[in-house]
Amino acid sequence: MNGADALISASHAAGIEVCFANPGTTEMAMVDAITRSKKLRPVLALFEGVASGAADGYARVSGKVASVMLHLGPGLANATANLHNARRSQSPVVNWVGDHTTWLLPHDPPLASDIAAIARGSSKWVRTTGTLAQLPFDAVAAVEAALSPEPGVATLILPADLQEAALPAGYLMPTALPARPLVRAPNPETIAATVRLLREAKSPLLFVGGTATDRKGLVDATRLAEAVSAKVLFEQFPRYVRREPGLPSPEKLGYLPFQARAQLSAHDVVVVLGAGTPVPFFGYGNDSPSLTAEGTRVIEPAAGGADVHAVLAALCDAVSAKAAHQAAVGTVELPEPDGPLQPQSICQAIAKQLPENAIVVDEGITSSLALYPALTGARPHDYIACKGGSIGYGTPVATGAAVAARGRRVIAYVGDGSALYTLQSLWTQAREGLDVTTIILANDKYAVLQMELMRAGGAIEGPGADLTELGRPSLDFEHLAKGYGVPGRTVRDVSALNVALRQSFATPGPSLISCAFG
Amino acid sequence: MNGADALISASHAAGIEVCFANPGTTEMAMVDAITRSKKLRPVLALFEGVASGAADGYARVSGKVASVMLHLGPGLANATANLHNARRSQSPVVNWVGDHTTWLLPHDPPLASDIAAIARGSSKWVRTTGTLAQLPFDAVAAVEAALSPEPGVATLILPADLQEAALPAGYLMPTALPARPLVRAPNPETIAATVRLLREAKSPLLFVGGTATDRKGLVDATRLAEAVSAKVLFEQFPRYVRREPGLPSPEKLGYLPFQARAQLSAHDVVVVLGAGTPVPFFGYGNDSPSLTAEGTRVIEPAAGGADVHAVLAALCDAVSAKAAHQAAVGTVELPEPDGPLQPQSICQAIAKQLPENAIVVDEGITSSLALYPALTGARPHDYIACKGGSIGYGTPVATGAAVAARGRRVIAYVGDGSALYTLQSLWTQAREGLDVTTIILANDKYAVLQMELMRAGGAIEGPGADLTELGRPSLDFEHLAKGYGVPGRTVRDVSALNVALRQSFATPGPSLISCAFG
Repeated sequence: MNGADALISASHAAGIEVCFANPGTTEMAMVDAITRSKKLRPVLALFEGVASGAADGYARVSGKVASVMLHLGPGLANATANLHNARRSQSPVVNWVGDHTTWLLPHDPPLASDIAAIARGSSKWVRTTGTLAQLPFDAVAAVEAALSPEPGVATLILPADLQEAALPAGYLMPTALPARPLVRAPNPETIAATVRLLREAKSPLLFVGGTATDRKGLVDATRLAEAVSAKVLFEQFPRYVRREPGLPSPEKLGYLPFQARAQLSAHDVVVVLGAGTPVPFFGYGNDSPSLTAEGTRVIEPAAGGADVHAVLAALCDAVSAKAAHQAAVGTVELPEPDGPLQPQSICQAIAKQLPENAIVVDEGITSSLALYPALTGARPHDYIACKGGSIGYGTPVATGAAVAARGRRVIAYVGDGSALYTLQSLWTQAREGLDVTTIILANDKYAVLQMELMRAGGAIEGPGADLTELGRPSLDFEHLAKGYGVPGRTVRDVSALNVALRQSFATPGPSLISCAFG
Repeated sequence: MNGADALISASHAAGIEVCFANPGTTEMAMVDAITRSKKLRPVLALFEGVASGAADGYARVSGKVASVMLHLGPGLANATANLHNARRSQSPVVNWVGDHTTWLLPHDPPLASDIAAIARGSSKWVRTTGTLAQLPFDAVAAVEAALSPEPGVATLILPADLQEAALPAGYLMPTALPARPLVRAPNPETIAATVRLLREAKSPLLFVGGTATDRKGLVDATRLAEAVSAKVLFEQFPRYVRREPGLPSPEKLGYLPFQARAQLSAHDVVVVLGAGTPVPFFGYGNDSPSLTAEGTRVIEPAAGGADVHAVLAALCDAVSAKAAHQAAVGTVELPEPDGPLQPQSICQAIAKQLPENAIVVDEGITSSLALYPALTGARPHDYIACKGGSIGYGTPVATGAAVAARGRRVIAYVGDGSALYTLQSLWTQAREGLDVTTIILANDKYAVLQMELMRAGGAIEGPGADLTELGRPSLDFEHLAKGYGVPGRTVRDVSALNVALRQSFATPGPSLISCAFG
């Protein structure tokens, strides 16, 4: 057993079942160990950002820790944008980054760089394994760090010679049980203070996010809200929301500060549950960082690492909330989409045909506004958005979600600009036979940037404004999909979209539909 | 005039003429300033690694500093792999990274991350502009840092509100002249010591790299070598080599340690000129970091930042080298390629048809072995390789090279695996009408990793070894190219390749030829 075998074995014992990988020379011992152990499912990506985004999606859907295998500093850097998203969405991810052999590294070979510095851009825990004896313990520590005290990204840097070195006979491996998140109990005083505030409030709001947008969190937040006459509002980009008839469907916080302020202004008390204090996504001019009205009291009863589900349960108990909630979306007769192809009709078409238990990954950017409301009342599904805001997350997250959720259809709803950061995802989908339908919102521009440029007083025509325009030449997603081994088609009206959706949902494996509009 | 206008104006005065960009919301003032100033040429990339690689290629070919516009930490991270290559190849590149508005950043909005930490993975100089008054001076300092004392990567982080703020009336802009590299004169004692060593040597070697592989460096190294009966050897992956009949064509150092040692073993003195002491690319087993034979004396007369061209000239003077060198490649009757499609015949076909003054960018990985020798004796051209070793540099560097070298054909010779990290380059080539011919070596595998895996004792079949295989599904580069707006075709024999090359070289604009073999 060598160091790489010990890594795989200890990590598997700690709960890792899959490895999203884009390896290089310094990871060959790990590749070989995965082959021999047959314990982990290896999933190859053509680009590291696909691997890290897939790990995020896998972690959200499975609730398990995902591993990512990366090649040195540049490989880790390529993975970082989606690791940022994983960090912000509290997805537990462990990176295994190979490094140069210890006796070569001091001589600064060409591919050497400061891996730990790059890791600090996305990881809360970074360690370079220093000795072979420590390696399997570092493997377990990485999994634990990814889970606790709050889920996030842990990076373990593994010199190639330590991966290759044989463990001595009689070496005692760590006796890991699958790592579990550290669950910190709610603080009774904080619970009591929160209840006091809720009871004093004229118009309290529960601002719910993080891991609390799942079914259990949503039900308990609704029960609590009904007991104290509060409103429930989701954060802007929730990580994983259960939606189905019989469950309530809270609004999300608006993206632009003026929208968010309009939603928050009426509330004199805001109880933050898993979401973090509401803050603008970007700052404009001499605006304020506060979104709540002056004098609004904000309390975060799960601050300090308390488990937000336990906090919600304790609050429900403290106010004697009823077991059953009243608020619920009923089964809705969804409108038949009609008219020209545009985000509204595209979303209605998706909602109408949505397969039971689908997972919808939303990276539609300016085309997203219509999606969440259109899906209200659709067949039961999960909805995923990107809190971190780093572009290029949609197709990788959908890939990892599909790895975790065999038998469920995954829908990636993605802007054309966004899709092109990490479109290599399609190839992994084809390779793994994943049931992913990628829907491209092809408006031939960075529409959000044209909006922002106009806001900044700029013109959207001319040589610089060119930097927001994608139509010269127009991107052909049908060909791009075929290039990656995925059937693709372009639709230009709602009826063609309906046909394409029907066919995609009925056909196992991936496909892509490019909606040309705008 | 706002901060962004001042940035563009001061940077232009310091010598920047082009900006490779993938902007976001926090860069809109810069986008607007570029539009209004009309001073810089903006070049849009769909992915940041294309922008940074293009900057590297532009810098190599033009000799000028390139700027790159990036969105926050994730954008910088996506650019980092090719910034690593720029750093190792001594290409002067300035990054402008927008950051959140200063009054929002302390509230940790979703897209906030440690930008400076990420920058340290590739940049020798990192600064966050703290005040509006300082901004234009920071702009000039960034250009100077990118050039001196040795060319490399400088990163300037620019909060959005400082970009947008108006400079006070009467503000005095820095009066920058175009920045130039600091040229440190050779140390006479070092020159004398080097000459002594060369004269004592039985079999001296000049190991040439960095900026010294251009025409001037090559000529002077050859004159010096002829005066002292030395041999000239290039580093493994030279940044920019002039090749033409009438110039000598030194061998390159071998990639694998055993090859390199065979080339170096006969030499008792090695004079390092711009290349750095030879070091293995990767360390294998319990091998040594040294490539020279025991007892070989290594001297680096340009160490400490002396200008390598000046050192070469001083050495030539000190040994009274003749003005004209003898060694030269003559015009060679290149072989007519024949037989099945394989790297050897592909490279012969390229060499035979090579347009005058072409620029050849080599990222063929295992298929590269044949390229440099095959081009010996071909029409005059420049040859570019990647010292940093980070994958995905070929198509972006070719893009930037073509921006710098209007009227010259650029050939990107790229492995299939490598091409897929940054294939979005093709779109920028189409958009800008760049004369780039991309030749894909499509063997459906990470061949170098299969070699490395076997070396590590692993099997190249089975679930883990799957991580080195690209044929399931096979990638269709013809479709991928079309998707990005570039004409593409697949060839399967030498005569089809000849036709495709002829057509590509005769047609303005980009095209792609996928060579399916293996």
